[in-house]
Amino acid sequence: MIIDIITIFPNFFNQFLETSIIKRARENQKVEINIHDLREYSESKHNQVDDTPYGGGVGMVMMFPPFYRAIKSLKKENTKVIFLTPQGKVFNQNDAVLLSDFKHLILLCGHYEGLDARVLELVDMEISIGDYVLTGGEIPAMIVVDAVTRLLPGVIMEESHQTDSLSNDRLKYPQYTKPEEFEGYKVPDVLLSGHHKNIDEYRKLMSLKTTIDKRPDLIEKTPLTKEELKILNKGIK
Amino acid sequence: MIIDIITIFPNFFNQFLETSIIKRARENQKVEINIHDLREYSESKHNQVDDTPYGGGVGMVMMFPPFYRAIKSLKKENTKVIFLTPQGKVFNQNDAVLLSDFKHLILLCGHYEGLDARVLELVDMEISIGDYVLTGGEIPAMIVVDAVTRLLPGVIMEESHQTDSLSNDRLKYPQYTKPEEFEGYKVPDVLLSGHHKNIDEYRKLMSLKTTIDKRPDLIEKTPLTKEELKILNKGIK
Repeated sequence: MIIDIITIFPNFFNQFLETSIIKRARENQKVEINIHDLREYSESKHNQVDDTPYGGGVGMVMMFPPFYRAIKSLKKENTKVIFLTPQGKVFNQNDAVLLSDFKHLILLCGHYEGLDARVLELVDMEISIGDYVLTGGEIPAMIVVDAVTRLLPGVIMEESHQTDSLSNDRLKYPQYTKPEEFEGYKVPDVLLSGHHKNIDEYRKLMSLKTTIDKRPDLIEKTPLTKEELKILNKGIK
Repeated sequence: MIIDIITIFPNFFNQFLETSIIKRARENQKVEINIHDLREYSESKHNQVDDTPYGGGVGMVMMFPPFYRAIKSLKKENTKVIFLTPQGKVFNQNDAVLLSDFKHLILLCGHYEGLDARVLELVDMEISIGDYVLTGGEIPAMIVVDAVTRLLPGVIMEESHQTDSLSNDRLKYPQYTKPEEFEGYKVPDVLLSGHHKNIDEYRKLMSLKTTIDKRPDLIEKTPLTKEELKILNKGIK
């Protein structure tokens, strides 16, 4: 997969590209990520990319021509052009899975009061990463790249996806590692028992309890199965 | 406001701290952001911060003691300790407003398969920035810092908040800037008219139409007022 990011802050992505899973996925050629400076697509003297809004109002609006040129020059036959905006569809894991199937994404990062609305006519998809207001589209672009890249084949272990929180609309069971006790805080006995069947049952039960407790909306979305009800009934005695 | 971030990738935040509104807010002492390397709170030989899970399973789990020491050493009387996790409450603009009222936040960034569950006993609030799975808590921490910092008094112009998308559960009207025409794409005539009353009505109408079209759930959440209905009826003729 190739991901092109168009931004006025190209350096913002330096460490992101050099850290952890993204770094490894790039090195192993699972993903190619290119950062493009929007100012290079401005044809004005001072590489201007924003101007005051028509009709008045506070703040600056990002100009149409630089985005137009950038998209035209980067777009191929199977490209999805995505604009990160609070006006977009709220991104979820299912969208990440869908996007991970594409060969080429162009991500547009907005700033200031927004983009000239004509840019939207060149956009295939508007994505919001959540119902909050941010300074710009750079962090949302990282979110999309991160969520999508870790789903690409060979990037992380397959087993890891299966126990991710949110897979099947259930949260993950609590986990513990060494030491067994620290400052009075202990690891639950069952995990130290070596009894695999009991550990498995404990984890399934805790995954359900955690979901019911913290995210009842997920239970509403994907109701408890008969097997899950059995686990819950067995657990509470 | 002081924000302490505990992470195994301290460099990840370098550019974030030096860019745009966050940079200015720091320079103007509206916010102090400190990045802490979790490994410095490990007391093992190789600054170990993760280990295999009790009870078996794939991947590594972040250890309890380093977080325990970091939190104990940074926590003050009025601190909110926040863990960024897909298991948390889904963050929204209202949460950003609530958090912007605190004096001191500690943000914990997780990685790998998760944190030793004992860390949660030291946490005041678990926040998820959305229903998708990410590599770690660093980008979510940036989201929270960005959303909260721009709400601190004096960081950005007050007028700007009032017309933000999502303020009052309505999306923003489309905006345009120079040039009037480019490659056949034009700015709507009304915005070039100089007629302020018409421009104001156009924007209110477009804000409503955009919201109804792209985010009908927001209309369900905050139903149309009488005034809004009047604008819509007047607009569609």
